[in-house]
Amino acid sequence: MVGGAKVDVSKPEFSRQFQKDFETLLKWRRDVRRFKTDPLPEGALEHLLHLADLAPSVGNSQPWRIVVVEAPEKRAEVIASFEAENEEAAKHYNDDKAQLYRQLKLAGLKEAPVHLAVFSDDDPEQGYGLGRATMHETLAYSTVSMVHTFWLAARAEGIGVGWVSILDPDLVAKVLQVDASWRLVAYLCVGFPEEEHIDPELERARWQSRSPLETRLFRR
Amino acid sequence: MVGGAKVDVSKPEFSRQFQKDFETLLKWRRDVRRFKTDPLPEGALEHLLHLADLAPSVGNSQPWRIVVVEAPEKRAEVIASFEAENEEAAKHYNDDKAQLYRQLKLAGLKEAPVHLAVFSDDDPEQGYGLGRATMHETLAYSTVSMVHTFWLAARAEGIGVGWVSILDPDLVAKVLQVDASWRLVAYLCVGFPEEEHIDPELERARWQSRSPLETRLFRR
Repeated sequence: MVGGAKVDVSKPEFSRQFQKDFETLLKWRRDVRRFKTDPLPEGALEHLLHLADLAPSVGNSQPWRIVVVEAPEKRAEVIASFEAENEEAAKHYNDDKAQLYRQLKLAGLKEAPVHLAVFSDDDPEQGYGLGRATMHETLAYSTVSMVHTFWLAARAEGIGVGWVSILDPDLVAKVLQVDASWRLVAYLCVGFPEEEHIDPELERARWQSRSPLETRLFRR
Repeated sequence: MVGGAKVDVSKPEFSRQFQKDFETLLKWRRDVRRFKTDPLPEGALEHLLHLADLAPSVGNSQPWRIVVVEAPEKRAEVIASFEAENEEAAKHYNDDKAQLYRQLKLAGLKEAPVHLAVFSDDDPEQGYGLGRATMHETLAYSTVSMVHTFWLAARAEGIGVGWVSILDPDLVAKVLQVDASWRLVAYLCVGFPEEEHIDPELERARWQSRSPLETRLFRR
């Protein structure tokens, strides 16, 4: 109470060290496709899901619906969908690009100890529709924020995440018997990575390098 | 070289302190609608955009297209779109909820020193279409990851972000004269917040509280 000044101790200030480490986290977050089969530590998944649940959502609607896929026969159906769609995708490339495509490892579904199917409810009661009258897709975008939060939180604990999108989303919804208003946003493989890299696998495999930000930045 | 062990110093390990501070960041990231008019420090916006550009993207396509909206007449057209759509939205609520809706402050467009319109290219060359044959919307989802990265990085530096979705997205695209393949994903207000809270404004205003994660979590 010296000087009578009231100090608000609750509002956090983030240190320069935290800001630097956060940049390191962003640089080392990778889409992981090579997993160890070791299980996650007890409680780790639940902890990460609680952190991810802090993500922003339109109208505070929290539209994400998370399915932990455990049944081996359900996982097998998802893997079969990936293999079929991946083969279909390969057919659309020519010559060298087709050959390179087939060499890419695009999912770690067989090895990853945890599978999460993340859906977005297209018509949640929560939020009373606020903020999405002209941009209904902000519901799915909220769910993406939740997925991305999960991804970053996992990497901060040394846990890898791979986002698999080479799937038939309707088939996944059917296999998992979810509500008709749920739309698949992401299918995630989660586990400890076999290797860690600062550069994306698609860059190392010479599929696609990143390009400079300046090509994506405009002023009006 | 003691013992001949090779230590990989490049791969980062995140400390328990970092993990705790990251949780604090997630808890204190807010959708800000009350901004000071002070400009951002020199170089701050560019720094945050470079961090956001580290976001994941399908096939490494980096489909985000960022427009810094500076011209006062263009900002005025965006503000007019917000006001019209916000009034339209209010009409869809009854009695108490309509009254409460009209009291909510849902955007800080007039005060925020920086406006960013973030679009997603629906047909980028980069990435060679990898990963999006069955889920084309992963392009827009990649752009959401970029927006969310920007949001977190900004908060870590004490800078607030508000995502405005009560807009006519086609009108915003027209006002900003962007390519036909660009779709508006987010319109962001950026600046120093007037006040900081750990609870969402929609919760404080008794519009919508958060609900327990357990209601969104399923096993199959």
